[in-house]
Amino acid sequence: MLVLSVNVGSTSLKYRLYRMDGEVELAHGHFEGVARDRGGSSQQAGALTRQTDVPARGYQDAIADMLTFLKETNVLPQLPDAVAFKTVAAMGVTGVQRLNENVLHCMEQLNALLPAHNPPYVAAIRQFMDIMPDTPLIGCFETGFFSDMPPHAYLYPLPQALSEQGLRRNGAHGASHEYVTQWVTKRMGKPVRLISCHLGGSSSLAAVRDGRGQDTTIGLSMQTGLPHNNRIGDIDPYLTFYLHETLGMGLDDIKHLYGTQSGLYGLSHGLSGDMRVLTDAYQRGDPRAKQAVDAFCYQLRKQIGAYVAALGGAEAIAFTGGIGQNSPIVRGLALQGQSCMGIVIHEAKNHAAQPGDDISVDDSPVRIFVVSTNEEIIIARKAKRWLERKETH
Amino acid sequence: MLVLSVNVGSTSLKYRLYRMDGEVELAHGHFEGVARDRGGSSQQAGALTRQTDVPARGYQDAIADMLTFLKETNVLPQLPDAVAFKTVAAMGVTGVQRLNENVLHCMEQLNALLPAHNPPYVAAIRQFMDIMPDTPLIGCFETGFFSDMPPHAYLYPLPQALSEQGLRRNGAHGASHEYVTQWVTKRMGKPVRLISCHLGGSSSLAAVRDGRGQDTTIGLSMQTGLPHNNRIGDIDPYLTFYLHETLGMGLDDIKHLYGTQSGLYGLSHGLSGDMRVLTDAYQRGDPRAKQAVDAFCYQLRKQIGAYVAALGGAEAIAFTGGIGQNSPIVRGLALQGQSCMGIVIHEAKNHAAQPGDDISVDDSPVRIFVVSTNEEIIIARKAKRWLERKETH
Repeated sequence: MLVLSVNVGSTSLKYRLYRMDGEVELAHGHFEGVARDRGGSSQQAGALTRQTDVPARGYQDAIADMLTFLKETNVLPQLPDAVAFKTVAAMGVTGVQRLNENVLHCMEQLNALLPAHNPPYVAAIRQFMDIMPDTPLIGCFETGFFSDMPPHAYLYPLPQALSEQGLRRNGAHGASHEYVTQWVTKRMGKPVRLISCHLGGSSSLAAVRDGRGQDTTIGLSMQTGLPHNNRIGDIDPYLTFYLHETLGMGLDDIKHLYGTQSGLYGLSHGLSGDMRVLTDAYQRGDPRAKQAVDAFCYQLRKQIGAYVAALGGAEAIAFTGGIGQNSPIVRGLALQGQSCMGIVIHEAKNHAAQPGDDISVDDSPVRIFVVSTNEEIIIARKAKRWLERKETH
Repeated sequence: MLVLSVNVGSTSLKYRLYRMDGEVELAHGHFEGVARDRGGSSQQAGALTRQTDVPARGYQDAIADMLTFLKETNVLPQLPDAVAFKTVAAMGVTGVQRLNENVLHCMEQLNALLPAHNPPYVAAIRQFMDIMPDTPLIGCFETGFFSDMPPHAYLYPLPQALSEQGLRRNGAHGASHEYVTQWVTKRMGKPVRLISCHLGGSSSLAAVRDGRGQDTTIGLSMQTGLPHNNRIGDIDPYLTFYLHETLGMGLDDIKHLYGTQSGLYGLSHGLSGDMRVLTDAYQRGDPRAKQAVDAFCYQLRKQIGAYVAALGGAEAIAFTGGIGQNSPIVRGLALQGQSCMGIVIHEAKNHAAQPGDDISVDDSPVRIFVVSTNEEIIIARKAKRWLERKETH
């Protein structure tokens, strides 16, 4: 069985091709700057590679280019058995779903909440439908890991009619949190009360019990929870009314502000939304970088504390994602002074950490791990299970 | 020195008159339903009382009625030395301020954020200015207790230009948190790392170190943080765009929804926004009440955990306000299973608690207190100090 794992960004398309028997990765690639002036692509299948510095004119061209490469390198002579998509969220739909017009419509219903995520995803999926109409396209919704959160965690304090429409805390990064959960479960030999920290361009935390997400920092949109690269996190909801009524800003300008000028970029006074740049500048003593890094790590520390309380005590904390895996500064600042909760980080281990390391001191009641996540294999497995159920029923 | 402590609600006016020498309360009273069809007033000075079931036609009438009562009962033959107001927030102004047109203008700048609070306050203060133009009217801003919060706690992830305009976490219930802090400091014999929980029609938590608020759940408006009676708490800020763009709601309707149909009232599916009603129904097994009480207590528990992390461990937690002081169910649910943070509540003491009681088990590392707050004396003291500084400089 061959499964193509696909992730679509606002101007990008990334893929991995798996032979599911033995979970062998046969190829991977990414296209950047899709439908933009600048971009390119990079693909690899075994020893064979192909690179271009010409952006694809659209998702259709990128998909055709990918299929040509996979055919020419003989890793995918025909079409794949399924294409698995790491879809973000849809109104009233979650878990693993065959993507059809009904499901796409439910995704489009959240365009106002996910303006950078759902429109390009739906556009790309429609292209896959055109190119391979008989191949199952499987949406593995990021919200699925949180679909049995208890009401006290997912409910917003809204009237019943709105809550029942699906306006609730939905979550994100479900594939990553699920990978981390399985990794920690294996490492510790049993399911534990875990705080999974996926920190990257978008960041979210998950409070995990019995292998499932019990709470998360992401609500309905990807502009909530911790500050993101240039997207805003939790704020006073009435700020929008102030900006509109008192400062006279239009709603589209406010969305542009929240969606592109805020987060780490805003906190650093426009220095950067990239934590690598910020932590480098932080180490050189840059006050704008210090402000952004300190604020991010303080919110992260508070959120970890909130989830320790939610779980009635944690047994493990895991860091993944571009920031979580690679920034000892962020991990160190977030966990400093937390022995009150049984969390004691080992400074030297933290700074020398490699993926898979335990960076807590030997007698820390809470284990602290650095994990290299693999969202693609999680969604490929989900597509495989979907196909197997399909075949046997 | 005679100081009149005044608190203005959207349709109410409450007061206490103090002789500051010895802090003797000479009189108190409240007017309800000001400028409404139904209402009344109740005033007491020593053994003398006056009650009406006729609402004052406006703040001017209520103030005149109050002054007549205080004069006739001989507790206030002339005007007071100062009137102290528990003002909520103003743009760019905090602490203790003589109220003049400049300060009122700064209050009015926040009308979009505090629609239920600032407009009636400013209207009432203008009436006091007319009636007693030479009496110092002292605004004791609720944000003052939080005015030296560190940037990592008060900054929203916004561009510099907006943060510098004052769009930041401001806080509320400062007089109450300050009273509680002083009470706990006296009780424990030293300043401690304290989590002060003011829970009532509006609720907020304060993380307190060295006697000052280091963080709080209230941002700019009174519709943030924990769910309030019928006002919304923390939500995904993009919910507003969804309601507007996708469901077609007007912004005024959204504000009405957030400001009157949400919070505990929304969580209980319209059963009640009053925690007394909800906990009574909760004990009878009502599922709507259970949903609201569980959600409120879960958010409270998470917030306490966040502040334990922010403070690097707490030494005391104090509950005050109508809910905090009177609801053993809320205190018990919020603190259950928190021994991981050194917080262990004594079930029987919690249920029998009187103001001033310590309801933690004997060996709980974190003390847990029930406190009867007194915001009026805090602001009267602030006005007294303002007058003394004024007199000596």
